[in-house]
Amino acid sequence: MPNIAAYYKGDHRFELRDAPVLPPAADEVQIEVAWCGICGTDLHVFHGAMDQRVGSNRIIGHEMSGTVAALGAGVSGLAIGDKVVVRPLKPCGHCPACAAGHSHICHNLKFLGLDTDGAMQRYWSVPAYAVHKLPDEIPLDLAALVEPLAVACHDIERARLAPGETVLVIGGGPIGMLIAIAAAKRGARVLLSEINLSRLTLAASFGIGAFDASKTDVAREVMAATGGKGADVVFEVSGVQAGVDLMTEAVSTRGRVVMVAIHAKKPVIDLFRFFWREIEMLGARVYEPQDYEAAIDLLVRHGSEIGRVITERRPLSEIQIAFESFEANGTSMKTLLNCQEGTAQ
Amino acid sequence: MPNIAAYYKGDHRFELRDAPVLPPAADEVQIEVAWCGICGTDLHVFHGAMDQRVGSNRIIGHEMSGTVAALGAGVSGLAIGDKVVVRPLKPCGHCPACAAGHSHICHNLKFLGLDTDGAMQRYWSVPAYAVHKLPDEIPLDLAALVEPLAVACHDIERARLAPGETVLVIGGGPIGMLIAIAAAKRGARVLLSEINLSRLTLAASFGIGAFDASKTDVAREVMAATGGKGADVVFEVSGVQAGVDLMTEAVSTRGRVVMVAIHAKKPVIDLFRFFWREIEMLGARVYEPQDYEAAIDLLVRHGSEIGRVITERRPLSEIQIAFESFEANGTSMKTLLNCQEGTAQ
Ligand SMILES: [Zn+2]
Ligand SMILES: [Zn+2]
Ligand SMILES: [Zn+2]
Ligand SMILES: [Zn+2]
Repeated sequence: MPNIAAYYKGDHRFELRDAPVLPPAADEVQIEVAWCGICGTDLHVFHGAMDQRVGSNRIIGHEMSGTVAALGAGVSGLAIGDKVVVRPLKPCGHCPACAAGHSHICHNLKFLGLDTDGAMQRYWSVPAYAVHKLPDEIPLDLAALVEPLAVACHDIERARLAPGETVLVIGGGPIGMLIAIAAAKRGARVLLSEINLSRLTLAASFGIGAFDASKTDVAREVMAATGGKGADVVFEVSGVQAGVDLMTEAVSTRGRVVMVAIHAKKPVIDLFRFFWREIEMLGARVYEPQDYEAAIDLLVRHGSEIGRVITERRPLSEIQIAFESFEANGTSMKTLLNCQEGTAQ
Repeated sequence: MPNIAAYYKGDHRFELRDAPVLPPAADEVQIEVAWCGICGTDLHVFHGAMDQRVGSNRIIGHEMSGTVAALGAGVSGLAIGDKVVVRPLKPCGHCPACAAGHSHICHNLKFLGLDTDGAMQRYWSVPAYAVHKLPDEIPLDLAALVEPLAVACHDIERARLAPGETVLVIGGGPIGMLIAIAAAKRGARVLLSEINLSRLTLAASFGIGAFDASKTDVAREVMAATGGKGADVVFEVSGVQAGVDLMTEAVSTRGRVVMVAIHAKKPVIDLFRFFWREIEMLGARVYEPQDYEAAIDLLVRHGSEIGRVITERRPLSEIQIAFESFEANGTSMKTLLNCQEGTAQ
């Protein structure tokens, strides 16, 4: 089979062409990619916001699933045909974060699909340590959700979430939605603050208490729902000032705020309330191996339900349309590209 | 003995007069106060910043030591003459914080010596549950440091500080200094950022690595001292924007920031770095009973050394001068009032 690959060429433009298929190097696994989701980061690339990092001839993509096509020398524990996903992190191994055992947030971290070519192609070779084997029963389209779901599982792990606790998720995009769903599956009572109607509707369909922040005083609703206590855990996924204001207002005394959002601009924050109520805040970024296993486990148990976050599927050959329509469409949640239906244009 | 008491009368003014000495009520302990330290909060009162809360006929003071003078009905476990200190918190018992076991930060907390009359008098009656018995060997002047040292012990407990970790304390006032000293006694390597020369000198005399923030890039010094890792724990005790900037710059990946300062004005904060480096922030306020026990234990072991933070002692009769000279004097750290040498003016 030819290796059809989608190259990001700069300025909102992808180009499809045959890429060379090299045999996997030692300690590498060659994967025949099945599906690849479009991530918020991929949209940033599309907008040109990351040109300095990715260049203008880069195969992006990391929210993928596939099967093992070939094994490089020295790789064990995997067989041709195994269903797999990739944890797309390449730590340096020697910085202070790596030395302290936090290699997932290595100071010199490389991200596969940004700093190296990624999964929006038919054949993708990656380091063997990054590969997670899937149980046979997971459909490969759902398996493309493992990566973003692992983000959600990592965030929940950082929160030390316990069953029966009340959670507020601020921002119902793909990551916020998956956090809300995963927290509910862990036995939490989940509330969500959003302004997009289709996201509110989707959240409600999962049994999540969805509040329209454009029409409601969400902090007041959270207090009313908790007898004045506030949320035990707040996930700030909005990245805006209003989210930072809400998180400190709605969290309980000794509650935990998990900082998931990328705040490109420094917001103002009510540090007095952090002191006064002994609030805890925890930054949370990407995932560790056990978060991948937790995400896979969640999909085994609740895959068809969680799969409802997939709002669009297109062949890789339609990548340009897929990115453009995602942006134009206010109701999109997760678009998957089928990397085995790609044909060069 | 007459009960000489210092009443705050508003507008930087104290008045000394005989206060009635009532026998302790049921479940109360009457203490003959020995020493009472002047706290930052007491200075706020002096400035008139808390008039709405304390009124203008209030005996303030809570950083005290003394001996049991009389026991109310139903009080057990204490005897006349016992050396004691008071944990000056009066929780409501029924709010969400109390219900969750965090009564020290009760939503309706009353503070003895602000919301009720305090320790700047000869005889002070308090609820028995608030009394901590001291070992006989602690001198009563040093015991007046138990309350602020319990704040420091609480902050260190919140930080989950481990021996061998590197600590940065931002702000070397009385609380910052006691945090730095207590952290050093727990086996941490302690750095301190300050701009006041006498505080820098005092810190250095305790073996603390004291940096003059007006002349040095402290974040850079911390990075240099830790091989680029940053401080495992940062205590923000400055309450200013520069402190908030420094805390996020100087803390390590997965490090802990303890928010001790009162930020009356909302600062801007680098939340991106919290996310990127998975930084943790923990609010910390007042103390719990075990923090009092830890503080007492520290004073038993290192009392004479820690006592060097006491920079001035005056009889209660000189309270007006004590407050005024503390303010005028840039080298003051902790002033103690001797409540048994007070005479009505
Ligand atoms: Zn992603
Ligand atoms: Zn590294
Ligand atoms: Zn105090
Ligand atoms: Zn309470």
